[in-house]
Amino acid sequence: MSETWDNLVAISRELTDLGTAAKLLDWDKAVMMPPKGATARARAVATITGIAHERLTDPKVGETLDVLLDDDSLDDDQRASVRIFKREYDKATKVPQELVFALAEVSGLAYSAWTEARPASDFSILQPHLEKMVSLKKEQADALGWEVERYDALLDDFEPEMKTSEVVSLFEELTSGLKPLAEKILDAAGEPPEFLTAELDGENQKAFSDWLVVKLNFDLERGRLDQSPHPFTMPVGAGDVRQTTNVRKNDFRSAIFATIHETGHALYEQGLPEEWADLPIGSVPSLGMHESQSRLWENQVGRSRAFCEFMLPHLKELFEKELGSLDPGDFYRGVNHVRRSLIRIYADEVTYNLHVAMRFEIERKMFRDEVDVADLPEVWDEAMERYLGVRPPDAADGVLQDMHWSIGALGYFPTYSIGTLYAASLFKKANEDLGDLNEDFRAGDTSRLLGWLQEKVYSQGYRYSAKELQEKVTGRPLSAQPFLDYIDEKYSEVYGL
Amino acid sequence: MSETWDNLVAISRELTDLGTAAKLLDWDKAVMMPPKGATARARAVATITGIAHERLTDPKVGETLDVLLDDDSLDDDQRASVRIFKREYDKATKVPQELVFALAEVSGLAYSAWTEARPASDFSILQPHLEKMVSLKKEQADALGWEVERYDALLDDFEPEMKTSEVVSLFEELTSGLKPLAEKILDAAGEPPEFLTAELDGENQKAFSDWLVVKLNFDLERGRLDQSPHPFTMPVGAGDVRQTTNVRKNDFRSAIFATIHETGHALYEQGLPEEWADLPIGSVPSLGMHESQSRLWENQVGRSRAFCEFMLPHLKELFEKELGSLDPGDFYRGVNHVRRSLIRIYADEVTYNLHVAMRFEIERKMFRDEVDVADLPEVWDEAMERYLGVRPPDAADGVLQDMHWSIGALGYFPTYSIGTLYAASLFKKANEDLGDLNEDFRAGDTSRLLGWLQEKVYSQGYRYSAKELQEKVTGRPLSAQPFLDYIDEKYSEVYGL
Repeated sequence: MSETWDNLVAISRELTDLGTAAKLLDWDKAVMMPPKGATARARAVATITGIAHERLTDPKVGETLDVLLDDDSLDDDQRASVRIFKREYDKATKVPQELVFALAEVSGLAYSAWTEARPASDFSILQPHLEKMVSLKKEQADALGWEVERYDALLDDFEPEMKTSEVVSLFEELTSGLKPLAEKILDAAGEPPEFLTAELDGENQKAFSDWLVVKLNFDLERGRLDQSPHPFTMPVGAGDVRQTTNVRKNDFRSAIFATIHETGHALYEQGLPEEWADLPIGSVPSLGMHESQSRLWENQVGRSRAFCEFMLPHLKELFEKELGSLDPGDFYRGVNHVRRSLIRIYADEVTYNLHVAMRFEIERKMFRDEVDVADLPEVWDEAMERYLGVRPPDAADGVLQDMHWSIGALGYFPTYSIGTLYAASLFKKANEDLGDLNEDFRAGDTSRLLGWLQEKVYSQGYRYSAKELQEKVTGRPLSAQPFLDYIDEKYSEVYGL
Repeated sequence: MSETWDNLVAISRELTDLGTAAKLLDWDKAVMMPPKGATARARAVATITGIAHERLTDPKVGETLDVLLDDDSLDDDQRASVRIFKREYDKATKVPQELVFALAEVSGLAYSAWTEARPASDFSILQPHLEKMVSLKKEQADALGWEVERYDALLDDFEPEMKTSEVVSLFEELTSGLKPLAEKILDAAGEPPEFLTAELDGENQKAFSDWLVVKLNFDLERGRLDQSPHPFTMPVGAGDVRQTTNVRKNDFRSAIFATIHETGHALYEQGLPEEWADLPIGSVPSLGMHESQSRLWENQVGRSRAFCEFMLPHLKELFEKELGSLDPGDFYRGVNHVRRSLIRIYADEVTYNLHVAMRFEIERKMFRDEVDVADLPEVWDEAMERYLGVRPPDAADGVLQDMHWSIGALGYFPTYSIGTLYAASLFKKANEDLGDLNEDFRAGDTSRLLGWLQEKVYSQGYRYSAKELQEKVTGRPLSAQPFLDYIDEKYSEVYGL
């Protein structure tokens, strides 16, 4: 190994360690921190991420990378690490420091304006901050550089190497297939069954989540499951992947499906190659690919008839009084109930992607200067009607429902649906390779599927971009068809269409 | 304010934030971390403390301090901060980097040798590492510099501005008074009562600890109480002070007195002046002063007859079956039972200080080249007999019982007893100022005492050295007499001597 390569590894290790500190500070903030620790904590996170930025943008890092880009003695994996590191370095150095600070500042202000604006259902509280945010994000995109359209630069932060034009055509395929399908399903769906909102003991719900993650092979020697208001997964460091869930008294779907969702993220993190833990290729290739695993485990596994049949007896044991007489078919149909919803995060797996596609359409127009921030409430309501056939009664349940824009997460939304498409595509291939998995699921045994994902996806780390990886694994370019087929087949059966 | 002063504040803030990250990594390691996260965690801690060391020893820091040392426009508090910062800077820069690394390395090796040596009761496993450690600590002391004796340099790390000669004379006063007193008490003490080892439900013991810290005015909005194998207190950051305790099935004194002990540390941390949170004077002046608060709350408050009478009814509620018929007098005498013990950490408040004085005698001789590491087992056993009248049956319960030496905490032990002396001296003064506190304690009301400590000690931060602070508060130089009087009075009453 060259000395220059060793230098890169040392830099990468230091960044990994700073990342561990920053991630633990964040995890702890959401799960453990006493309320009055917030101010000091925010500054500590800013200091640690500032130091990481300073280390990453050190000109010596650039020199090291330039030498390694020309080093023919590196193997493919090393070359991949150098390439990813170079991307990160370029991104970090291209954006002027003042712009980084300005973005951090407006993000703080806009987020806190959003927390005020939403309960008040008053977009005007957020508007000036969001205008500033969008204008700064345009500057940032221009500093990073783009060829075809500005949105490419934003998207690249979350779904590296995917272009806006690809998302446009994927989403066209997705929505044109999904809208008529959703119409048909929604017409048949009727009202949600009452058992979904039964009041269930919180401690027993927690016990169910604890049982569930173990059944799904989440390794508690290398991770934890805790509670937090918003479920999330945080890979603190090698051998330490933390997920949280959120128990809701009157909606036990959270304790089941938010848990399976996060377990999907967590299994991916626990399956990353340990020998690359300190190198750029030891991570996931994109947010979309990450989301593919939460979706695949939550929906293709968790919401399958077979896995529902596996879970129900244990639920009945814990909640004899409330669920003791529940029929397996009713349970399955209930947790897959489809309806026209205003709120994305409560949407079912059918309509969810229409929420996402609609946000992508609006975001893209903002960055093509076709929509002004001031017009967002109206644009939102019109799009909701067009995509989902409902009109929000107010801004709180409309344009103000998500915090993403306020914190500058622009270009992020599409990854939710890209993940959905990866998931359906990978799951189709897994079934082709492994044969029918339903008998496994009915017995609560997901190990064959996990082994397949481990080999094909998790162990690959960031050796390839997400797009390349999905093509390599499935042998097919990414398309919405596997997802549309999955939805059509599943819901035709559920609703006897 | 001068720009140079602002520079110092900025440096101090960054060090505080790095400290927050390092402390959270440590707290989490003891309380939350899954077992297989240990390797990555150890490296992350090393990286963060390495960066903090790099920032602290930046020559620009030295230049900033030199300018400020000559700046007449600073007020007393600023001057105190500059003085403390300068001490830290000098210490950090005087020790060569290779020596720092060598110490860290031998510390890792010696600690892991100790974890092997103790269960095997085999000093020879530890000996070569400890020899290396002592030799490196001598080098470190010489690099730091000393005038009268080498031990001064070690002691200064834990009890700044106190000299070995002062400890020698304090400990002479302490042991010469304590030995005959302890003899008399030990002769009268008899066997420990059986209720001390009753098996009590762990969850109820936790509930008792939770109740206790609230009664003692530990602020849960600015802190947490958790469980860990070894109780400790960690001030993670402003508004975030964490303590742990340890529930033991067959010894409920841990859930009571380890909790009160840590609460003493935690109240001190929560009482430090918030406006100085980022400055050197916003911390505690010494380990001894810190320990004074854990001891004062544990012993002078927690083990007082009045506070025992306050606690007992709630204990009876929780443990009706096991403690329902316990007499308050028996409870008080039981939790104050005195005996000849081999193990320091299980010693009562009377004999505890003989354990400490004995370690100080040995440590000091090592650094005066009067005792070789190879002879420690023999030297230990002889000293135990001389100080405590017992001879360890083996090395495990003798020279190998504490881990301190293996991790290089040499010069640390005396602070345990210095803290005991501060505690007795401060408590005496509090009683003089406030009048008898027993009626308060009997009602579970420690707020007058806390208010007094808050004003006199906690709110002073590190404005003065511990020695100066105790003199300022009590109007008397530090002496062992208040402690000896307290022991004499309390145990004469307990045992009717």
